Amino acid sequence: MTGLCLEDLTLGQSAELAHTVTDADVRTFARVTGDNNPVHLDEAFAASTPLKGRVAHGMLLGGYISAVLGARLPGPGSVYLSQTMSFRRGVRIGDEVRTRATVSKIDTRHARVTLATVCEVAGKAVVTGEAVVMVPRRAAGGR
Amino acid sequence: MTGLCLEDLTLGQSAELAHTVTDADVRTFARVTGDNNPVHLDEAFAASTPLKGRVAHGMLLGGYISAVLGARLPGPGSVYLSQTMSFRRGVRIGDEVRTRATVSKIDTRHARVTLATVCEVAGKAVVTGEAVVMVPRRAAGGR
Repeated sequence: MTGLCLEDLTLGQSAELAHTVTDADVRTFARVTGDNNPVHLDEAFAASTPLKGRVAHGMLLGGYISAVLGARLPGPGSVYLSQTMSFRRGVRIGDEVRTRATVSKIDTRHARVTLATVCEVAGKAVVTGEAVVMVPRRAAGGR
Repeated sequence: MTGLCLEDLTLGQSAELAHTVTDADVRTFARVTGDNNPVHLDEAFAASTPLKGRVAHGMLLGGYISAVLGARLPGPGSVYLSQTMSFRRGVRIGDEVRTRATVSKIDTRHARVTLATVCEVAGKAVVTGEAVVMVPRRAAGGR
């Protein structure tokens, strides 16, 4: 259940996961976080805003980024230190979101790794940003 | 169901929401996002990491931030443009998280507002960062 160690990572290494946003996921996310902003839940209201219709919570996509980092690259055992996110386009119910993280910087001394993170729908970036994680070093006895 | 307009906002204005993290919320968040990192779900694994026990997903707290912005300040009708988050301390199941947003910059020309965002447990910051939102202008006819 352990993920990659600092010594396993190289610049440009990347991993991706795909999620299709469902109405149920958006409603569940709203319930769990208390984020009941009608722009996510009420089509008539959302249609009156600059988004012109219901969109998924940006932080649901933040969860997709966290999933790539926690499950794939670097995977379990890494510690999430920071994340930046720019919300560039609204994501609709039914959209397939491809979320990718790419290693952009390795700080061997402090065991910290920076990854460029992007969520895309139909090849267009909807969320862009950067993550920093602390990654375990390989144990002296091998692992 | 409309929130505050650009003209309603002042520097230093703030709003807060409290959430108590439950095991069910963490497991639901994992299911909806696909973030099944065992550091959130498996106490034995999590105890072996620098976090020394299960913690909530950082992005669940991101959802709490989004809830303050979307429900309180500025409220419905605003559009979330960006968020930064530094994850400073792990949050345990049962912790009460107080999430506060404070207006730190108002760009009247572009109708963009910056808010300092913080999640605290027992008075200590667990997540700090900054949000930028686009806020509607008051309609000429009043609103």
